[in-house]
Amino acid sequence: MVDTVLVPGPIVLSSSVQKALDIPSLAHTSPEFVSIFSRVLQNTRKVFKADPKKGQPYVLAGSGTFGWDLAAANLIYPNERALVLSTGFFSDSFAECLELYGANVDKMNAPVGGVVDLTAIESQLQKSKYRLITITHVDTSTAVLLDVKRIAEIVHRISPETFVVVDGVCSIGCEEFEFDKWGIDYALTASQKALGAPPGLSVSMISQRALEFAQSPQTPTKSFFGSLKRWTPVMQNYEAGKGAYFATPAVQLVNSLDVALDEILQDTIEKRWEQHKKTSDWFRSKLTNELDLKLVSRLQDSAHGLTAVYVDEPPKVLSYLKQNGVVIAGGIHNEIGSKYIRVGHMGVSAIDPRLDHIPRAYELIKQALH
Amino acid sequence: MVDTVLVPGPIVLSSSVQKALDIPSLAHTSPEFVSIFSRVLQNTRKVFKADPKKGQPYVLAGSGTFGWDLAAANLIYPNERALVLSTGFFSDSFAECLELYGANVDKMNAPVGGVVDLTAIESQLQKSKYRLITITHVDTSTAVLLDVKRIAEIVHRISPETFVVVDGVCSIGCEEFEFDKWGIDYALTASQKALGAPPGLSVSMISQRALEFAQSPQTPTKSFFGSLKRWTPVMQNYEAGKGAYFATPAVQLVNSLDVALDEILQDTIEKRWEQHKKTSDWFRSKLTNELDLKLVSRLQDSAHGLTAVYVDEPPKVLSYLKQNGVVIAGGIHNEIGSKYIRVGHMGVSAIDPRLDHIPRAYELIKQALH
Repeated sequence: MVDTVLVPGPIVLSSSVQKALDIPSLAHTSPEFVSIFSRVLQNTRKVFKADPKKGQPYVLAGSGTFGWDLAAANLIYPNERALVLSTGFFSDSFAECLELYGANVDKMNAPVGGVVDLTAIESQLQKSKYRLITITHVDTSTAVLLDVKRIAEIVHRISPETFVVVDGVCSIGCEEFEFDKWGIDYALTASQKALGAPPGLSVSMISQRALEFAQSPQTPTKSFFGSLKRWTPVMQNYEAGKGAYFATPAVQLVNSLDVALDEILQDTIEKRWEQHKKTSDWFRSKLTNELDLKLVSRLQDSAHGLTAVYVDEPPKVLSYLKQNGVVIAGGIHNEIGSKYIRVGHMGVSAIDPRLDHIPRAYELIKQALH
Repeated sequence: MVDTVLVPGPIVLSSSVQKALDIPSLAHTSPEFVSIFSRVLQNTRKVFKADPKKGQPYVLAGSGTFGWDLAAANLIYPNERALVLSTGFFSDSFAECLELYGANVDKMNAPVGGVVDLTAIESQLQKSKYRLITITHVDTSTAVLLDVKRIAEIVHRISPETFVVVDGVCSIGCEEFEFDKWGIDYALTASQKALGAPPGLSVSMISQRALEFAQSPQTPTKSFFGSLKRWTPVMQNYEAGKGAYFATPAVQLVNSLDVALDEILQDTIEKRWEQHKKTSDWFRSKLTNELDLKLVSRLQDSAHGLTAVYVDEPPKVLSYLKQNGVVIAGGIHNEIGSKYIRVGHMGVSAIDPRLDHIPRAYELIKQALH
């Protein structure tokens, strides 16, 4: 009996996505693989709602974390300033990554469970000049959702030359996200989140102007495996249907991601966002209204791909659910980590009501507490 | 009809290794996954012939290339000297990686198809002080095999403080390799080579003294995703049977690697080396004696996991084999890249004669040339 995995990634795979892993080796420059990879890159643009021609998507062996390296090692000079909006553990880690590569980081911390005040962002941008700002769309540690659209508007108005970098690890595929319309310069996610594929791939997208910056001979590249100067021609070639080489792609994972992206795009992406909203609204309303629990995030700033909620004895709840075949996650936060639980509701668990994943998780949490 | 992939990685998977990909998502800190990952790390030590307690293996989402970053970003200070023994494209790329992270690289180039002279290495080590030396055990571009054991002996004798770093991408699992006995400090490979697993994992091993260097607060860490300071406690925990987190592991790939390592260790590793030697000796003798072809590598310095051989019209040979369901690779080398072909014979293709992979490749090459 297989556990139902409702952690905020790796998420439950659809049976077709899982089956797509079970393929023999393909040579990474064979026409068969090139055709799969080309489609994956084109569909990545669609899921990010990016321009079909400008900028460049990257699908690389690695994890979500590696996307931070791609930004920090390619989109900012050492000693240039970066503004990090922090809503939890993952925003803070992004700041550490930027600092490791030499950036001068200013961090604006939201109160626990809250968002960074928009007026404060505005005045900070007026005070200092930043090469880039990072926005963690959803911090997977707290389920806080930032208003990327409005923050990007502020950046474009006050400091149009600043790159807008979005950590979309727990958002892209389940939250409203418009790479092109909102003027995002770099956005990153991981295969095992709302894209619905197995873990092991870093999936990201760069704008045309940020690409020109990263590719400029003047811009220092601070990572070898994470060099956009090296990866860009490889991705451009694959997308155009030609094999290319810098490091061997994870052939089976790419094939599985191909099926996952195709499933997302079978309907409109807007409909998918709507389904995640519906599931998470239902779940949160049950937790707060019927069980009288308190969310970590403020209700109006809550993510739609996971829920973080305070409970009295998190280990007891986790182990009761595990005994009943449902795996959820504990808290991860410097101050409040031991006081709450996290339940992921991305991909099939959120959009296929026949699976009964989220209602069942709710029932088990209710039993665990009583 | 599936092509038989005889490129020097990704290699053909055994059916059990392939089937092991087709598993549902597991939470990366669940007891089920921790137990798999713990065994993978312990078996990695065995396949590398490393100490069961000292040092640390790393299995990370990434590719072979990423292993160079792990060495270059953790095992040398900026402006310290590195000595690179170059036998082809991949050794040269390792040098570029070291330079990107600030090392001062001296390169000793072997003649095309040849090895670096041992006496020259000895006098170079006497002339300058190096933090590390890199030895590409098998350069996948030329099939040149270096004598790691003897080179390591020279380093230990002349410059015992120098770290011995081995790129074992096309060797570990198919060439004689003794991490511990030979006093290697860091060795790296990729899952899709002689380990017989799908691509997408960087697999490496560090010695105790190199680990202490990498973990020292004085040693600068130049990569975030590739930080051994961050990964070491995570790998130590997993190996000891406890979940830990820095970035999400590629769950399905790790499960597949588990089966692949188990298959390697079902017999002795020495027997596996012997089988690769037997297959490659047969193949090379047929190519040179019966078809009168010239190897790129000198016969006595030839790898046992792939063969690089000059042919008049490589594209014609490649396409004839492809038409007949066998995929081999072209050359990759600055000077002679367009003049030869490469055939991989690692894993099941080398050790299971019932598959008839290498005899069939030979017959097809013969037909293509006549």
